[in-house]
Amino acid sequence: MSIRYLTAKLAQQIDEELMNAAGAFSLDQLMELAGLACAQTVAAVFDKSKYPRVLVCCGPGNQGGDGLVAARHLGMFGYQASLYMPKPGSKEIYQRLKKQCDNTAIPTVTGEDELRASLKSSDVILDAIFGFSFKPPIRSPFDVVLPILSESRVPIVSVDIPSGWDVEEGNAEGLGLNPDVLISLTAPKLGVRSFKGRHFLGGRFVPKTMEEKFQLNLPAYPGSSQIVEITNLPSSSY
Amino acid sequence: MSIRYLTAKLAQQIDEELMNAAGAFSLDQLMELAGLACAQTVAAVFDKSKYPRVLVCCGPGNQGGDGLVAARHLGMFGYQASLYMPKPGSKEIYQRLKKQCDNTAIPTVTGEDELRASLKSSDVILDAIFGFSFKPPIRSPFDVVLPILSESRVPIVSVDIPSGWDVEEGNAEGLGLNPDVLISLTAPKLGVRSFKGRHFLGGRFVPKTMEEKFQLNLPAYPGSSQIVEITNLPSSSY
Repeated sequence: MSIRYLTAKLAQQIDEELMNAAGAFSLDQLMELAGLACAQTVAAVFDKSKYPRVLVCCGPGNQGGDGLVAARHLGMFGYQASLYMPKPGSKEIYQRLKKQCDNTAIPTVTGEDELRASLKSSDVILDAIFGFSFKPPIRSPFDVVLPILSESRVPIVSVDIPSGWDVEEGNAEGLGLNPDVLISLTAPKLGVRSFKGRHFLGGRFVPKTMEEKFQLNLPAYPGSSQIVEITNLPSSSY
Repeated sequence: MSIRYLTAKLAQQIDEELMNAAGAFSLDQLMELAGLACAQTVAAVFDKSKYPRVLVCCGPGNQGGDGLVAARHLGMFGYQASLYMPKPGSKEIYQRLKKQCDNTAIPTVTGEDELRASLKSSDVILDAIFGFSFKPPIRSPFDVVLPILSESRVPIVSVDIPSGWDVEEGNAEGLGLNPDVLISLTAPKLGVRSFKGRHFLGGRFVPKTMEEKFQLNLPAYPGSSQIVEITNLPSSSY
């Protein structure tokens, strides 16, 4: 049984079912576990003794929230995390997560000049800009931001779907980031079937009944880890 | 610098500051991370191949909520978790966390006869009955429940303060549980200074500024773990 790669619509449906009255999860819970999984992925690949400086780039939506949680955990893990939010989110939870980062002394980079300067002293980028609800085209200010990130040549860890990629078609138009590492949340999306780098799965909160209902065929996570590597695992899609 | 052991009042104050407007954490977030730390502690000491069956005993308050989160994560880790809630909590978050356990197919044990039967087929007890807001005496139904747990001789992992112990005076009256393992949350409490078993710390979410303000002198957590063992670490109290 191969792991299932999801359409954008199915990813949305699973997200909704986790948080409706039957699923009973709060957004705070899921975001905390997703963000922790993202931070653990950075730590699994980029040792903090060699790659201490992580620039966490956050979009305005829920994936940006995952990034804020990841930045805080990276700070707790001993990384020098910084935040870049070209378009900060307006939701109350986003403000709270940002405040938690401020309290953990995580600096925020503002504007494209600061971004360029910051990239020169960054060892890793955590790309939490666009998630599974992204639809092309890439709009302002991200049409300017994504090329700056790409041109920096700093290694990139993307969350769920590399920013700029179509959730189902991938990087067909070539305008998206080219990450070295990908952390898919809940289950991978159709658009990353051809991804060649190191691939991890996070979101160890999907109940077995839901996994079976959606035929996700998730791999076993090791021990008490919140992530499992799925590089080169065979895939199936429906 | 030795780790600080907290009074009940100080533990309460730190909890409040984490969740007020300045601290910005939600109860959902803190409970998720605390419960995950409890589950990781069980997994660190009791290998699931030898000790697969964990009975999670939950009180009606926030510590019971930590227990519900831990039970769910233990289920995700591959343990056979069961719940026992002699007095279920009435808060909305408690109901949601219980529902998440139901969705993860974690059975609930009801009544003292079922408890006794369940203990005969349990390998570990996770004691999440009373937390740092407990004040003696031990009231009904817990005056009956605690002796049943003790008499079972099943190894116990206690959360924060072993149930029945005074938060500052410990088990002076001898009516509390005698756990093998303790997982202190945020910082250990005065009452467990004399605890002789394996002792872990969880709650890797205290910002450095708050740690310094309260002179907690927390030890370094390893890697991306949510727990750190503090057995035999020197203590200080104020």
